[in-house]
Amino acid sequence: RHATGTAVQGALFPMDLYETLTAQGDTVRSLKAQKSPKAEVDVAVQLLLQMKLDYKRLTGQDYKDGCPPADGEMVVDTGAALEEGDDQVDPWNVSSSSAKGVDYDKLIVRFGSSKIDQELVDRIARVTGKTPHRFLRRGIFFSHRDMHQILDTYKKQKSFYLYTGRGPSSEAMHVGHLIPFIFTKWLQDVFDVPLVIQMTDDEKYLWKDLSLDECHRYTVENARDIIACGFDMFFSVRASPSFYRNVVKVQKHVTFNQVKGIFGFTDSDCIGKVSFPAIQAAPSFSSSFPQIFGERTDVQCLIPCAIDQDPYFRMTRDVAPRIGYLKPALLHSTFFPALQGAQTKMSASDANSSIFLTDSAKQIKNKVNKHAFSGGKDTVEEHRKCGGNPDVDVSFMYLSFFLEDDDQLEKIRQEYSSGALLTGELKKSLIETLQPMIAAHQERRKLVTDEIVQQFMSPRKLHFNC
Amino acid sequence: RHATGTAVQGALFPMDLYETLTAQGDTVRSLKAQKSPKAEVDVAVQLLLQMKLDYKRLTGQDYKDGCPPADGEMVVDTGAALEEGDDQVDPWNVSSSSAKGVDYDKLIVRFGSSKIDQELVDRIARVTGKTPHRFLRRGIFFSHRDMHQILDTYKKQKSFYLYTGRGPSSEAMHVGHLIPFIFTKWLQDVFDVPLVIQMTDDEKYLWKDLSLDECHRYTVENARDIIACGFDMFFSVRASPSFYRNVVKVQKHVTFNQVKGIFGFTDSDCIGKVSFPAIQAAPSFSSSFPQIFGERTDVQCLIPCAIDQDPYFRMTRDVAPRIGYLKPALLHSTFFPALQGAQTKMSASDANSSIFLTDSAKQIKNKVNKHAFSGGKDTVEEHRKCGGNPDVDVSFMYLSFFLEDDDQLEKIRQEYSSGALLTGELKKSLIETLQPMIAAHQERRKLVTDEIVQQFMSPRKLHFNC
Repeated sequence: RHATGTAVQGALFPMDLYETLTAQGDTVRSLKAQKSPKAEVDVAVQLLLQMKLDYKRLTGQDYKDGCPPADGEMVVDTGAALEEGDDQVDPWNVSSSSAKGVDYDKLIVRFGSSKIDQELVDRIARVTGKTPHRFLRRGIFFSHRDMHQILDTYKKQKSFYLYTGRGPSSEAMHVGHLIPFIFTKWLQDVFDVPLVIQMTDDEKYLWKDLSLDECHRYTVENARDIIACGFDMFFSVRASPSFYRNVVKVQKHVTFNQVKGIFGFTDSDCIGKVSFPAIQAAPSFSSSFPQIFGERTDVQCLIPCAIDQDPYFRMTRDVAPRIGYLKPALLHSTFFPALQGAQTKMSASDANSSIFLTDSAKQIKNKVNKHAFSGGKDTVEEHRKCGGNPDVDVSFMYLSFFLEDDDQLEKIRQEYSSGALLTGELKKSLIETLQPMIAAHQERRKLVTDEIVQQFMSPRKLHFNC
Repeated sequence: RHATGTAVQGALFPMDLYETLTAQGDTVRSLKAQKSPKAEVDVAVQLLLQMKLDYKRLTGQDYKDGCPPADGEMVVDTGAALEEGDDQVDPWNVSSSSAKGVDYDKLIVRFGSSKIDQELVDRIARVTGKTPHRFLRRGIFFSHRDMHQILDTYKKQKSFYLYTGRGPSSEAMHVGHLIPFIFTKWLQDVFDVPLVIQMTDDEKYLWKDLSLDECHRYTVENARDIIACGFDMFFSVRASPSFYRNVVKVQKHVTFNQVKGIFGFTDSDCIGKVSFPAIQAAPSFSSSFPQIFGERTDVQCLIPCAIDQDPYFRMTRDVAPRIGYLKPALLHSTFFPALQGAQTKMSASDANSSIFLTDSAKQIKNKVNKHAFSGGKDTVEEHRKCGGNPDVDVSFMYLSFFLEDDDQLEKIRQEYSSGALLTGELKKSLIETLQPMIAAHQERRKLVTDEIVQQFMSPRKLHFNC
């Protein structure tokens, strides 16, 4: 699917490529000036050289510092630089050959995003006065675009808003699906900003062998779970003139060549798939929602999502300035591993591949005990002697998502690594963490009546003033 | 743009191709059996042979009578069979090298539609008990798809509905733009059925260098002219869940390959153009308008339009059965000639290329006298002696569109051909026909207040029961 590679992902225009390249040149110079370790300088230089090759290939001209390319020439994003051994990460496929899962540092370089480093986490803590969420403390949200800009906005007492989504491909959601919502809930609580959630039943209809009615039924069921997270939010609806205006604006500014490059579409794909990225993009612009933002087109958007959704928003960020809108900022999460291991994303159609939000306490216990891939040794004796490997142990990974107490998590890690803690004991910790969490969710979900769903699915006013 | 030709236009699936081919075989056999003139048989045989070649090329198998092709194999419509000397006719370009304009008989064969023959005109008269509209009597609406089926439906006291549209590319409409609306008004009066009109400001935005706001302003101004025609109708709106459902259904069932073949799109076209045909298609299905049709998905649609719009509806008719809907029927009109001659369609941006609905009596007189291409001779003496040519005379063509009295029109034709009627006198007849018609339109348009436009542009109930 990805025939040629580009070091700079998502660069649709020579000017973007030029600017990224210039920035990389600055990075190299500053690393050398600071006498940084040779290995670090080498990596940066290598990336710079690759970028220059790409620049030549895509623009037909040599890169020259201080000489920006002629305006308006179009360049095709050739998709993820998928080389032998690289992980595949796009909205429809995520796969890795390593038991530890996807190499996220490599992904940041390939996608051209920025790492959420300790400095950013500390700044979030300073600006909000709140302890950063465990997903930030533990690198589960690990990559971003323009988060510093969002914090600047917030510091100036100006508002922004959150946008995330869900493609409802089945009735039941699993705990992995909750990750963006748990984090979004924290963001809304901490920053006190509006939230839009887009349910892409159209996407599922276009990509899967499902009828529109099935997709709609899944949407309503999934909406119930999302509402149960306790948001003050607004479901994005297609049937709005303002939303459609922005869809058409995006559609006018993206060519088939571009979506072919970004998403790997082919001539045999249906025109629904080809134009769907515009539907995914539209909620990134505040003018899509006059019900929330009135006439304001300048409220910036922050999108928390798994990194596989980034191609949509690379495209959105490229289009935004050309239609007079702000680029959305992003916070990217890692993938939630399947019970069987971190090589693949979970499948909602395999009940044993994860813990579902509908699972009973007993089901949770059985699934974890029976299916969670263990990093422990074959025998108790060997385990006591050599210790387990938490880096590939799925129960430990799940705990790092859901156990709030950092000290306790670190203690488990150390004791499991040393062999003091056995696999069964580790699994017990996970079971005891998941059971009350899922039960509480189920209690909240029970309170979400059909009327409440109906109310949330209709355009509604939020309590926010923008 | 059209690299390869296909004798059978619009056939997206081998089965359609097979059926058309089989029907052509029957035609040839019946012509031979009736001992029809050799020339006629030859044309039919030649078309049959061309179809067999296409069949082989597109399905990869030889045509064999009685052996339908394997189901489900996809074939690409390769666009209009544009050969040297053929007229170009598609939604964006109409051109002909002949002063008489496009060769419509050839177009019927190329598009695979049916001629509106005397038998059909007579049947319309019989079934409705009304004199057929002058556009039918004079071959201005000259081609159709499934009109007999619509008459069958009507005879069984079952309802159908009308759908036509307007792409608002400028504020002012000219008399040529009125043709489909004049005819649609007659159809609604005669058959007493609901009417949906789609204003495609999105199309104009995608294809032209116009802002969405400009396109919207043109829409409102054009809507005023359309409302002034006196319809009981409903403007199709994008912002409706039912409409969007049908757009997505169509989008799922048409590939990029197909729109490339039908419309000549390229990889450099924006994804808005690529997916727009689904927007044009959706109003052909009654389930797009629950406000009119409730739950009914089986009310057939009849589309009166100029023949250049046919590619959209060839696609729509191919998709319809695959999403469980009825194929829309069509009535195709010829093109309205520019004042300067019939070689091209008029341009709304050239004020002298036609009579506009905003022209004063004086402007009409001046334009006709100054710009209407004449089929007369250079001197009065020569004209009296040899006579004029009404077939290339634009004033005569306009009269054939707007002068109701058949006898009077025929008298003008004969007298102009013989030389008894001079060009100035012919032009005077046209001026005297247009002036009261345009003045009456302007009077009716004045009555269309902003409130009335607003009311029509919102979803509304019609007086029809379906």
